[in-house]
Amino acid sequence: MSHTLQELADLLGGVVHGDASLAVSGLGSLDDASEGQITFLANPKYAEKVSVTKASAVVLPPGAQRYGKHAIEVKNPYLAFAKLLTLFYVRVPEPQGVMAGALVGKDVSLGDGVTVFPGAVIGNNVRIGNRTIIHRNSVVGSDGFGYAPDGEEWYKIPQIGIVVIEDDVEIGAGVTIDRAALDVTVIGKGTKIDNLVQIAHNCRLGENCMIVAQVGIAGSVKLGKHVTVGGQAGFAGHLSIGDNAMVGGQSGVMGDVPAGSLLSGTPAIPHRDYLRASTLYGKLPEMRKTLQSLEKRIVQLEAQLKTIEPE
Amino acid sequence: MSHTLQELADLLGGVVHGDASLAVSGLGSLDDASEGQITFLANPKYAEKVSVTKASAVVLPPGAQRYGKHAIEVKNPYLAFAKLLTLFYVRVPEPQGVMAGALVGKDVSLGDGVTVFPGAVIGNNVRIGNRTIIHRNSVVGSDGFGYAPDGEEWYKIPQIGIVVIEDDVEIGAGVTIDRAALDVTVIGKGTKIDNLVQIAHNCRLGENCMIVAQVGIAGSVKLGKHVTVGGQAGFAGHLSIGDNAMVGGQSGVMGDVPAGSLLSGTPAIPHRDYLRASTLYGKLPEMRKTLQSLEKRIVQLEAQLKTIEPE
Amino acid sequence: MSHTLQELADLLGGVVHGDASLAVSGLGSLDDASEGQITFLANPKYAEKVSVTKASAVVLPPGAQRYGKHAIEVKNPYLAFAKLLTLFYVRVPEPQGVMAGALVGKDVSLGDGVTVFPGAVIGNNVRIGNRTIIHRNSVVGSDGFGYAPDGEEWYKIPQIGIVVIEDDVEIGAGVTIDRAALDVTVIGKGTKIDNLVQIAHNCRLGENCMIVAQVGIAGSVKLGKHVTVGGQAGFAGHLSIGDNAMVGGQSGVMGDVPAGSLLSGTPAIPHRDYLRASTLYGKLPEMRKTLQSLEKRIVQLEAQLKTIEPE
Repeated sequence: MSHTLQELADLLGGVVHGDASLAVSGLGSLDDASEGQITFLANPKYAEKVSVTKASAVVLPPGAQRYGKHAIEVKNPYLAFAKLLTLFYVRVPEPQGVMAGALVGKDVSLGDGVTVFPGAVIGNNVRIGNRTIIHRNSVVGSDGFGYAPDGEEWYKIPQIGIVVIEDDVEIGAGVTIDRAALDVTVIGKGTKIDNLVQIAHNCRLGENCMIVAQVGIAGSVKLGKHVTVGGQAGFAGHLSIGDNAMVGGQSGVMGDVPAGSLLSGTPAIPHRDYLRASTLYGKLPEMRKTLQSLEKRIVQLEAQLKTIEPE
Repeated sequence: MSHTLQELADLLGGVVHGDASLAVSGLGSLDDASEGQITFLANPKYAEKVSVTKASAVVLPPGAQRYGKHAIEVKNPYLAFAKLLTLFYVRVPEPQGVMAGALVGKDVSLGDGVTVFPGAVIGNNVRIGNRTIIHRNSVVGSDGFGYAPDGEEWYKIPQIGIVVIEDDVEIGAGVTIDRAALDVTVIGKGTKIDNLVQIAHNCRLGENCMIVAQVGIAGSVKLGKHVTVGGQAGFAGHLSIGDNAMVGGQSGVMGDVPAGSLLSGTPAIPHRDYLRASTLYGKLPEMRKTLQSLEKRIVQLEAQLKTIEPE
Repeated sequence: MSHTLQELADLLGGVVHGDASLAVSGLGSLDDASEGQITFLANPKYAEKVSVTKASAVVLPPGAQRYGKHAIEVKNPYLAFAKLLTLFYVRVPEPQGVMAGALVGKDVSLGDGVTVFPGAVIGNNVRIGNRTIIHRNSVVGSDGFGYAPDGEEWYKIPQIGIVVIEDDVEIGAGVTIDRAALDVTVIGKGTKIDNLVQIAHNCRLGENCMIVAQVGIAGSVKLGKHVTVGGQAGFAGHLSIGDNAMVGGQSGVMGDVPAGSLLSGTPAIPHRDYLRASTLYGKLPEMRKTLQSLEKRIVQLEAQLKTIEPE
């Protein structure tokens, strides 16, 4: 199916430069697109490729040179690329609802347009918002990990809370999200969770967070809005992480994090400090050697000084 | 259903102060409990809230002020809370046996009162003790990861051992426990395993261990009794970890660990040393700067001393 | 079933010393083997046990003393052990094809002799080579984790690429391998992947790699041939890792890695440097104390020198 540049500009919220009635029928990269297709410039360092691409039209950011090409100017060409990809190539609508091979418990509410992939398992008393996607073999609503010490043994604390997954959440494959002990575990609207992430009981993730693969979040942690967490990072329990904070991969967060912070390392420290410190880690042996050599030279200086100092 | 304080005291192994025939019909926190309910004081810092709670009775530790309330004195109020929660709120008995959607192999023995949740997969020749719980999408008895180098290629070593899960074990969601190569992988009585933990072939975990989410234990590691391991920690193969050892989250254990040790970091060192060292990590650039400045001052001192030293 | 030493030597590519017509009917360790069985010496430190083993024959490396025993000399006794274990003990052929409880999508091609275990889930448009094994509850071909920022929200980038698993790959339990965004995610021939590993979209793993449990590989990473990665290690996106590189457990690889490198730590540095530096980590408080003491002594020296220096 083909679309005119004007149709595409309307979809993307952009402005056509050139022939708005020109029709294109596919999307390709600057290098690979062929005649009749549209391409896009997302990275300014490839700006000159616009002059030689075989594509019939180009999606460009404001101010970019269009080398005489028919073009659509948009604020965010990468987002436009994602939207055009969906338009041109996601022909068969994604299956919606609960697919064969998914296992859903009792008293589960599913919003409109939810997709639960095969092998995903949803426990009892879980609420899932509209358009949320749960990928293969993820588990939502398993028991939280809570025990009271009873001498040497562990007495299981009943996990009788629920899980609420809000609208437009995407949960990757092999993820585990535990139900609350008494209250509610919440994944906020628009939050995206990568594969093999662990979210413990009573966590509350804000809207539009981005949680990369294999992250572990201990019980009762609160994430603000739009928090980004790199792969394999971990959070101790009961922490509060402010809006727009970013935590680097493999970091270990041991304390509360103010909004807008950028942290890395274990225990996590400001990212800039981490970068400087981590560079020196491999230089520890050299530093130690210097330290030992300075100590010797000081001993010598002290001895020399003693010999010449007036009594 | 309501219970008299005497009935509850008998259940909890406690002593009633006040009206033993008073009946209560539910459990709430010091802040939220209403008349007709019982509450509990687990954290001494909230001791004064006992005087103002609306609850009709309070579970207290020995020696706590009861402010004229009807009370049950117990040694461990947190454990009592867990038991009362079970009594009052876990009305429907948990499903037992193998639930629909669980996949069980050949020659598997299941003890009494075992619960295997949907999506859990148990391989052949696995023995599971009484009252053990296996949560959704966990895998028990998959092949261990063993290969013999054959030039550049890897020749699979048959994994023909078994797995024994003893009584009262709880295995979280998305956990993987491998069968032994030749012998047996053992999870000891009463041990609790959180989500997404990996336990490799031939491991032997003692009784009442506590393994937090995303921990990885390499092949043939032995854990003693009551070992606690924080989330995302890892163990190299063939190690022996003593009774009651505690390993911090994200630690990397590279050597044997004596009983009662408290370790953190990668490679893991005594926790107290780790705390001191990790505080200084971010100060490495400052230390290096000081080191360089001291070196310059020493060079200057040496030069000065040369000029004034008698020949 | 029994086999003569000559038959076994032919299987193993070895040479018989002693009675080639002697038949053995099982395999045991040097300590445990009984008469009528064959044993093996894989670790030279147990060489003297050959003299006292009850086994009727021994598999030995070149040059090892056979203490008058019937023996088969082979280059790689550990590989021979694996082959004999398969011969003697893997009697029932492993099930092949897709087992009950595995979920396979549309347009999936399965090679000859493929085994897909119960609970494994394979998405649409995945190609799986000959003799590949996929263990329980792994997911192959789930969507990659790709979003374009759209203000505060995240717009899903369609993941319309495929996954190619080549011949003789083994994928552990609970593994997640994402489909490519546009192109292809490749797991090279003979590569072995342990449990709970995450492999993101567009990764290309070479032949005969060895990926230990809980490793996370971010998008578009290329691994060369025969790369070994220790448990819980992580890779940032878009890196290129050379042939035969080895990465230690829990390492964080942040940059390209030349062929043959041996790296450890986060950020990963040469393993030898890491070993030296990590030993000093716990000594940071001591180093800092020394530094402070040296500074004081220098201040004193400077003051003393001032008093005696000629004007």
